[in-house]
Amino acid sequence: MGPDEENKLKQKIFDVIFEANTPYGKLFDILLLLLILTSVGLVMMESIPAINARYHLTLIILEWILTILFTLEYILRIYCVKNRWRYIFSFYGLIDLLSILPFYLGFFFEASKYLSSIRILRLLRVFRIFNLTQFTHGRNVLMIGLKESRDKIIVFLSFVLLIVVVIGSIMYTVEHDHPESGFTSIPISIYWAIVTLTTVGYGDVSPVTGLGQFLASLVMIIGYGIIAVPTGIVTMEMNKASKNDIPKNTERCRNCGDDYHLDGSIYCKTCGHKLDE
Amino acid sequence: MGPDEENKLKQKIFDVIFEANTPYGKLFDILLLLLILTSVGLVMMESIPAINARYHLTLIILEWILTILFTLEYILRIYCVKNRWRYIFSFYGLIDLLSILPFYLGFFFEASKYLSSIRILRLLRVFRIFNLTQFTHGRNVLMIGLKESRDKIIVFLSFVLLIVVVIGSIMYTVEHDHPESGFTSIPISIYWAIVTLTTVGYGDVSPVTGLGQFLASLVMIIGYGIIAVPTGIVTMEMNKASKNDIPKNTERCRNCGDDYHLDGSIYCKTCGHKLDE
Amino acid sequence: MGPDEENKLKQKIFDVIFEANTPYGKLFDILLLLLILTSVGLVMMESIPAINARYHLTLIILEWILTILFTLEYILRIYCVKNRWRYIFSFYGLIDLLSILPFYLGFFFEASKYLSSIRILRLLRVFRIFNLTQFTHGRNVLMIGLKESRDKIIVFLSFVLLIVVVIGSIMYTVEHDHPESGFTSIPISIYWAIVTLTTVGYGDVSPVTGLGQFLASLVMIIGYGIIAVPTGIVTMEMNKASKNDIPKNTERCRNCGDDYHLDGSIYCKTCGHKLDE
Amino acid sequence: MGPDEENKLKQKIFDVIFEANTPYGKLFDILLLLLILTSVGLVMMESIPAINARYHLTLIILEWILTILFTLEYILRIYCVKNRWRYIFSFYGLIDLLSILPFYLGFFFEASKYLSSIRILRLLRVFRIFNLTQFTHGRNVLMIGLKESRDKIIVFLSFVLLIVVVIGSIMYTVEHDHPESGFTSIPISIYWAIVTLTTVGYGDVSPVTGLGQFLASLVMIIGYGIIAVPTGIVTMEMNKASKNDIPKNTERCRNCGDDYHLDGSIYCKTCGHKLDE
Repeated sequence: MGPDEENKLKQKIFDVIFEANTPYGKLFDILLLLLILTSVGLVMMESIPAINARYHLTLIILEWILTILFTLEYILRIYCVKNRWRYIFSFYGLIDLLSILPFYLGFFFEASKYLSSIRILRLLRVFRIFNLTQFTHGRNVLMIGLKESRDKIIVFLSFVLLIVVVIGSIMYTVEHDHPESGFTSIPISIYWAIVTLTTVGYGDVSPVTGLGQFLASLVMIIGYGIIAVPTGIVTMEMNKASKNDIPKNTERCRNCGDDYHLDGSIYCKTCGHKLDE
Repeated sequence: MGPDEENKLKQKIFDVIFEANTPYGKLFDILLLLLILTSVGLVMMESIPAINARYHLTLIILEWILTILFTLEYILRIYCVKNRWRYIFSFYGLIDLLSILPFYLGFFFEASKYLSSIRILRLLRVFRIFNLTQFTHGRNVLMIGLKESRDKIIVFLSFVLLIVVVIGSIMYTVEHDHPESGFTSIPISIYWAIVTLTTVGYGDVSPVTGLGQFLASLVMIIGYGIIAVPTGIVTMEMNKASKNDIPKNTERCRNCGDDYHLDGSIYCKTCGHKLDE
Repeated sequence: MGPDEENKLKQKIFDVIFEANTPYGKLFDILLLLLILTSVGLVMMESIPAINARYHLTLIILEWILTILFTLEYILRIYCVKNRWRYIFSFYGLIDLLSILPFYLGFFFEASKYLSSIRILRLLRVFRIFNLTQFTHGRNVLMIGLKESRDKIIVFLSFVLLIVVVIGSIMYTVEHDHPESGFTSIPISIYWAIVTLTTVGYGDVSPVTGLGQFLASLVMIIGYGIIAVPTGIVTMEMNKASKNDIPKNTERCRNCGDDYHLDGSIYCKTCGHKLDE
Repeated sequence: MGPDEENKLKQKIFDVIFEANTPYGKLFDILLLLLILTSVGLVMMESIPAINARYHLTLIILEWILTILFTLEYILRIYCVKNRWRYIFSFYGLIDLLSILPFYLGFFFEASKYLSSIRILRLLRVFRIFNLTQFTHGRNVLMIGLKESRDKIIVFLSFVLLIVVVIGSIMYTVEHDHPESGFTSIPISIYWAIVTLTTVGYGDVSPVTGLGQFLASLVMIIGYGIIAVPTGIVTMEMNKASKNDIPKNTERCRNCGDDYHLDGSIYCKTCGHKLDE
């Protein structure tokens, strides 16, 4: 096989594995999605004692098969990308590695539950699938809306954090003489303040004194009022984002595997490689 | 009765049963609404042990009467529609069948609670009533707003599902050594993550370790933040929808029973039949 | 006192009691607000056993004083309004009557807790205070926004009601073999569906089977998604309302006591009486 | 040191401590932020019995060091500001004092938990940090949006308060014959109404009668509907605010320490002092 033929082969594999706008590329993405979901299902079933006791062997064998398939895919990805190190240390490259590594580490170390849980991070690979063209536009409006909101959301969240710390401390002072209320320390009181302000309300910690209940009512009404703030921010920014032109190009760079380029881009925005080569 | 007279009769019945913009059509819709609500009320009362023990016979007799009325209505619907199979296998056609079938099946099989519960699906027939013209505009703005948001909502919900699976797995790793917390398997932990992220917060499963409570706080604040996203999407699309002209035509196709055509439509958008025939 | 002088007196009393844009009118409104809040505070304190046992006599005497003041005010209102019956049977007229009647009825009938609780409806009289000019604009934007949203909100709420009944019935079928879950009848299951869909989540009823928890998760995610709908509606309509000119006139009709007229109105929009007489 | 040199020194200290747009000013702000967060962390750890028992001495010593640093900073602030009394009685001046005073009062009075909790108010000093320029724009959009919404939010909250008092009283009448429901007095019932309307839902108080559960369902659906109102208000106002030009100037007045001036301002908007002196 000459270097030219090999290059063509690499190009073909790249088109199938990395691109989403060819028939084989779509098929590959959908197959991969099914395999990932199956493997996540396996991790879940292993965690249910009744099922694990009964089907332990089946689960182990299926896990073997899936991990070997993922390993093959990982090797092919490294093989067909031009700039290999850039791919390996990219976000998706690391996730791809993390989703097979715990399995092989299990041979050398005690197979612990922590190693097993890391496998669920495989699920993050599903994000690739959103490159399927029909979702790109929706994703981009969301992404740009959220990116533009970031500054305001950070200010808002810092403000919320300050509020819950101050409220938690006040409630601790008011309630911690009544151990049945559950306000045993300031961190627990802050936990309560977050549970209340976000309107989750477990009820594992709740005030028992009249003053505490009055303050809690204030916190709830504040929480009810300020939930409007992030909503207002995101609505505003998303509105702006949907009015502007949003790139719909899903072509990937052959050099670093980066996607999401503006329409009409000739060079990759991340590594400067020519996009159509 | 000649075929012409029969056609006229069919036309009349069709106008009363399917259309909503004639006086008789409205009357029929309101009567039907009352019968459906009564029948749903009966199913509810049957499920309350104290009431069922006392009024069992009355409930049974009323159920008989209502089912016979619904059966008559179903036969008339089939009689007056031109393309019968299309109606029978349409969404509403199946719902109409499902709302009477369990009763008759009860003669042949053991009258089980599952059969009885299916009867509540009758309620879905109420959706027809929203064809009453005064609600059409409001409904259409809602519908179009939601339809346009669909892509973005799907992306958002997939993202939420990914988050809850990852969070659930992490919390399982952190908390499952403390059985009193209730994190006994990954599916249960995912259930907890959904309960928390959506700010429902039952409190049947809740973290007991410091690290777990810290992670739970993060989840709540994330949930508080991202509730803004669907709101932003829907507001944006509904805003657009209300600015555009929205069809106000509630005429139904005589061939397939489909409604919701654009103003000035001459042919049914679903089956191509002429609308005014 | 001649009829002319009496008319002038009536006019003066009317300006103080009904109008909010004169100094005395404002003073009267603020005094009334304080009296109403005090009286509501009394009703609350009576309901707390520890306080009622200790200060029973004081509470009774204060209640006497306040009721006499409210009765005087009621008589003055009837005296100075031109069209008396219209005032008496208006919304506020009935509330004014309801806030003093239970006290007098207590002389003839056993003073029951139901009579006592009706007194809290006095609080509704506070709505009058919102006629204070500084709040009028904000109130009007809210009112018009809500009025315009009404149709869409009704469609939305009907849809929510249908969903909770269907969900409640399904959950009843799934869970009612496990009495510890609390799904003992369809109405209770519908109550649970509302508690969950609105993200309140008391936790007094919660699913225990795997299928039930899976369905509950779906309900929560649906609830999380559709909370966007009313928000979108109200935002949209309020946006429209704030762009249009909104009446800022708080003058009241001397004949029927109706307020909230368009700027430049000459006749009352409710009874046709000239406004400046 | 001549008065001119002293003035220059004061100017330099002022630039470092009060301003945020010089390199040293930024460094100082970041250092201060770290010290404040450390000190808040100390207060929290003191409140956890297990940690306090073990590291009591370390915590005390660290508290000494931090308080001395904050005292030095407070003295420097007073030294370099021109109009000292104005600074001391400004919001931040009082917070600065409150964050060191409890420590010194502890020498004269019994070191009570109340004094200790006041120290957490130090956290409010963090708000200064938001003067870091990158956050100014986001903060200003938020601030102006909220300021413009104030009137409407007040009307809305008064309305919510009225609703919860009326609902609380009705629920008290309905449920207080069933002590296991927890509706023991009207204030507790109002507390329940707030917990429910804001969708927090602890579950410590929840209705047990059929009528009570029906009314509770209504409250939840109302709460679900009216959460749209503040969101609509804030979105609308924030939308307006982001369209207008918002000041991005973070320069502080040397006389009173006030910040947040319009671009191109020459005199302080609060005390009239020339800004660049």
